[in-house]
Amino acid sequence: MSALRIGLLGCGRIGRVHADSVTVHPRAELARVFDPFEAAATEVAAQFGSTWTTEADAILDDPSIDAVIVASPTPTHVDLLTRALRAGKAVLCEKPIDLDLARVDACRAEIGELSERVMVGFNRRFDPSFADIRGRVAAGEIGGLEQLVIISRDPAPPPAAYVATSGGLFRDMTIHDFDMARFFLGEVVSVTAIAANLISPEIAEAGDIDGAVVVLRGATGALCSITNSRRCAFGYDQRLEAFGELGMLTAANQLPTSVRFSGAQHTEVAAPYFNFFLDRYTPAYRAELDHFVTAVETGTVPSPGFGDGRAALVLAGAANESLRTGATVAVTA
Amino acid sequence: MSALRIGLLGCGRIGRVHADSVTVHPRAELARVFDPFEAAATEVAAQFGSTWTTEADAILDDPSIDAVIVASPTPTHVDLLTRALRAGKAVLCEKPIDLDLARVDACRAEIGELSERVMVGFNRRFDPSFADIRGRVAAGEIGGLEQLVIISRDPAPPPAAYVATSGGLFRDMTIHDFDMARFFLGEVVSVTAIAANLISPEIAEAGDIDGAVVVLRGATGALCSITNSRRCAFGYDQRLEAFGELGMLTAANQLPTSVRFSGAQHTEVAAPYFNFFLDRYTPAYRAELDHFVTAVETGTVPSPGFGDGRAALVLAGAANESLRTGATVAVTA
Amino acid sequence: MSALRIGLLGCGRIGRVHADSVTVHPRAELARVFDPFEAAATEVAAQFGSTWTTEADAILDDPSIDAVIVASPTPTHVDLLTRALRAGKAVLCEKPIDLDLARVDACRAEIGELSERVMVGFNRRFDPSFADIRGRVAAGEIGGLEQLVIISRDPAPPPAAYVATSGGLFRDMTIHDFDMARFFLGEVVSVTAIAANLISPEIAEAGDIDGAVVVLRGATGALCSITNSRRCAFGYDQRLEAFGELGMLTAANQLPTSVRFSGAQHTEVAAPYFNFFLDRYTPAYRAELDHFVTAVETGTVPSPGFGDGRAALVLAGAANESLRTGATVAVTA
Amino acid sequence: MSALRIGLLGCGRIGRVHADSVTVHPRAELARVFDPFEAAATEVAAQFGSTWTTEADAILDDPSIDAVIVASPTPTHVDLLTRALRAGKAVLCEKPIDLDLARVDACRAEIGELSERVMVGFNRRFDPSFADIRGRVAAGEIGGLEQLVIISRDPAPPPAAYVATSGGLFRDMTIHDFDMARFFLGEVVSVTAIAANLISPEIAEAGDIDGAVVVLRGATGALCSITNSRRCAFGYDQRLEAFGELGMLTAANQLPTSVRFSGAQHTEVAAPYFNFFLDRYTPAYRAELDHFVTAVETGTVPSPGFGDGRAALVLAGAANESLRTGATVAVTA
Repeated sequence: MSALRIGLLGCGRIGRVHADSVTVHPRAELARVFDPFEAAATEVAAQFGSTWTTEADAILDDPSIDAVIVASPTPTHVDLLTRALRAGKAVLCEKPIDLDLARVDACRAEIGELSERVMVGFNRRFDPSFADIRGRVAAGEIGGLEQLVIISRDPAPPPAAYVATSGGLFRDMTIHDFDMARFFLGEVVSVTAIAANLISPEIAEAGDIDGAVVVLRGATGALCSITNSRRCAFGYDQRLEAFGELGMLTAANQLPTSVRFSGAQHTEVAAPYFNFFLDRYTPAYRAELDHFVTAVETGTVPSPGFGDGRAALVLAGAANESLRTGATVAVTA
Repeated sequence: MSALRIGLLGCGRIGRVHADSVTVHPRAELARVFDPFEAAATEVAAQFGSTWTTEADAILDDPSIDAVIVASPTPTHVDLLTRALRAGKAVLCEKPIDLDLARVDACRAEIGELSERVMVGFNRRFDPSFADIRGRVAAGEIGGLEQLVIISRDPAPPPAAYVATSGGLFRDMTIHDFDMARFFLGEVVSVTAIAANLISPEIAEAGDIDGAVVVLRGATGALCSITNSRRCAFGYDQRLEAFGELGMLTAANQLPTSVRFSGAQHTEVAAPYFNFFLDRYTPAYRAELDHFVTAVETGTVPSPGFGDGRAALVLAGAANESLRTGATVAVTA
Repeated sequence: MSALRIGLLGCGRIGRVHADSVTVHPRAELARVFDPFEAAATEVAAQFGSTWTTEADAILDDPSIDAVIVASPTPTHVDLLTRALRAGKAVLCEKPIDLDLARVDACRAEIGELSERVMVGFNRRFDPSFADIRGRVAAGEIGGLEQLVIISRDPAPPPAAYVATSGGLFRDMTIHDFDMARFFLGEVVSVTAIAANLISPEIAEAGDIDGAVVVLRGATGALCSITNSRRCAFGYDQRLEAFGELGMLTAANQLPTSVRFSGAQHTEVAAPYFNFFLDRYTPAYRAELDHFVTAVETGTVPSPGFGDGRAALVLAGAANESLRTGATVAVTA
Repeated sequence: MSALRIGLLGCGRIGRVHADSVTVHPRAELARVFDPFEAAATEVAAQFGSTWTTEADAILDDPSIDAVIVASPTPTHVDLLTRALRAGKAVLCEKPIDLDLARVDACRAEIGELSERVMVGFNRRFDPSFADIRGRVAAGEIGGLEQLVIISRDPAPPPAAYVATSGGLFRDMTIHDFDMARFFLGEVVSVTAIAANLISPEIAEAGDIDGAVVVLRGATGALCSITNSRRCAFGYDQRLEAFGELGMLTAANQLPTSVRFSGAQHTEVAAPYFNFFLDRYTPAYRAELDHFVTAVETGTVPSPGFGDGRAALVLAGAANESLRTGATVAVTA
């Protein structure tokens, strides 16, 4: 089988992560990279041994390219995704599909059944620890799932300019946790959000929040709490526990080595955790790409798909409404 | 200094815990134990080398007794506490003071300044791990406290008969967690509760809940989430994390030994956790008693006091109201 | 049953540990304490609520005293033990019985069958973690025992004066590890010792060593390595692993609380370990005493007994011989 | 810079590990693979996208190939290494260079200064945890190194046919641990070995041993103990602790995920460890190759080098002599 030829749309930070995943994948090839900024496009092309372009059409119109990864700024996702699908390509689209639910729905109406060729980049589903827990919960190891506890803290607040266009904490950051909640709970029936502004005056001035606890109820009655913070002194805090009738499965933060120091002042000291998603989720991004490549190769529907991207956005909207009303918000599928 | 002579009112399960703490305390003496059931009174007296009575007055009217521990059924707390204070004794009263806030307030009005001679049995404040974290947070080790995560699960649901008179999950079980939240957050300004009935049909039939997530906001803006379950396959799940600007302090579950097993099927296997509060919190109960004894000896006001007992009850009431309304409930001091 | 009346011979550091264990034991009573230094005797008597004497005979000749604990300086052990046995008392004797094997053998000849009323204070056998492993190995959980790894490091070298009369590292410190090895391996057939002088010039000048690795072979062929150091920056390092056909059981160092700190510089930081045996082995000393009390009450032979005390001394002697010869030394029972 | 063109000599299990490392290295290229068995050569060539040959000369005589990896059976190492050096290539040679020290010395005499172009495959030096500890010890974090504890157990005994030609446990398995000891201790001055036959009658019949404790003394006086077993129920047991004046650095076994299970029977259960070196040391093999590639690119002397390969063999010989004599064996550099 010849390698799947993949075009990369967007050569920013997350685009480079995908370029790396494609490069090390044994059955994929980074055919061409696009970025409107030539410096970004050439740098990524050089680093990963690909050709480059500053015109997206040079990829979208290239029949030798089988699939694209949409890693451009959020407002461009819908347009690029739609054009790529029409050009016959499979699409791995970074989250969120768009900040505006109406626009997502319009896109869905337009692409019709082609939506089944879209995978949405909720990489954490492919983290080996989270995926292991998900599989074991599904296998019944803890009986019925009753409580899911997600701790998700970023190391440092993003720049003010980023915050301004981010869509707010729930659409920008919690969106991953909403998807993780759905990964375990399935359908969510209600959302209750409580938020805080304790970290960044800039974020508060921008009308956004910098910490939150969100509680979701699933259709089975199971509860999920998500604890978010835009700042975490000890790095990227990414933990999860699934609690059920027969026991609990937990995923702790991960360390680069197993080394511990004990001395006069303290004992069993570990190094800092991985600083951020680039380091922490490298294996997840690679497994995500492998799932996408395999789905394209076999003609199966990738997961998480377009509907999952939309559903996480619905939960973010419900969380914002809960903040405004101070009440629990019912969610309808 | 002669030993503090303590009378025990109530020889049930928790009464025995206190009898044990008094017996091993170097400066306290179990003077007499009371229970209306002679069998209970004599058994505890024999086990801990004390005298006994089936008449509470035999303790309350005994001028040689310096202090009493109220460990009788909740509805009797207010009466015994009031009479003991009037008789000039210091009082260590088990939680809750009463299930009815109005009755607590009436009691408070009646006892006046004598309330400063009351300590309320929120034993977890004296758990070495939680107390250590509290002290280190106060010392600034994690900077400003931003998020407090409390996991608190009982091993198994109580009998239906107990549930019927328990006052409900929030007044019976979460009350400890509400106090822990106040221990760290100080004043609480709002309560949001989300509950579940996933474990026990009997509890549901009794109109009670068997699981919950409660989110509190403190006056400083800090958030606290409490996760409760009436059942936990792996024992008594009691954990806490305090997260702040500079870092995080966590208290994990405790194990009877440091032994781990590694074999062909799995590795680093630990034994079950302590099954319930009798085992888990033995050191906490002993430290609690030591605080009480020292307060009586030195004439200082013990802590947590009557006001703390009342405040936790207020939060339980607010949580119930939040359940009814589906909205966040503001709390006024 | 009336409490077992125990006399304490020796009010130094280890004597106080035993006084504490007797005091908290529900079926034992500290009848009288002896020390030739009145200040020591009166202080311990006051602290633990006992009577005192500066004449050992006041205990040995007192028919109301059922048993004695020999916690005096090593050279006095044999004499006190012998006299106490002749006076009809059971004896819990601190290790070592004596530094001189010939003297131990002479004592054994003299006391004859009364040796069965002697328990030797190898407290570590009663450590909850080590005892748990021992029981599980005996129950076959790891199959045949093949390798035992003992790490045993003291926090700081003893004073030069102590070293001078200590009998050397193997008789003073490793003696506990030799007993632990026998606890698991049973009969030992050879000893190989390698030693170091890296820590204390005073110890080297005194002709002693301050670190060692000793390898023992049991009659079953199992190997045991003991790693000793007279100094350990992070406290009292006491660990053990038992490795067999089916797996491994390990006992890690113990911490006063379960608290961990994570911050910008490092993560999961624990507090220092227990500093020394007084803190680390409190539960072991108490369980040891309980075993002794129960043996006296029931008329059974306590364990470890006189023969175990002798056997550990034989291994210490073999280790010294191995150092001298640079060769493995065969041990005969 | 064009990629370093590497030829692989030997397509067995370890050869494939190296093929993988070359393939993922950004500056190396797997030019050609050799194995006398065509099936092996073609399979590896196909898997890693290389050309293949059943004649070593097709690689050794190819001037376009810059370097070779010697991963063939041990008896062929010296010949291939010598011919490759003469052909102007750099060499990464699997351990051991040869089982016969005399042959190694003859090789050394023959290759002269070309020995500086040889790197020996002691991959564990490049394990991220061990390398981290080594660097921190060198930086003085634990003060002077006093004790090094190496636990090294294989999951299962090799086939009898392998054992017969392996050179014995010390030359085949412990050789890695001897190198690790030298990595930390530098020059070793004495070796004491104690061995066991507890696992495999076939190994005993072949005159070999299946378990051992070896104690080394370094020139600084530091002691190192190595504990080996040919069988380990819980996988590949690879741990190390470096103990010094100021503290201790430990490297624990590694787990594929951070997932833990807690249930009614036991708590905090982890999955099995990595089963063997292919999984456990993948990052080490890749870092090893990176060191080799960089050394060739920059013309620096790689480490560990030919002398390190010889020195580990000397220690294995000393260990065998210690077994024969039952005494400590002095080692001269």
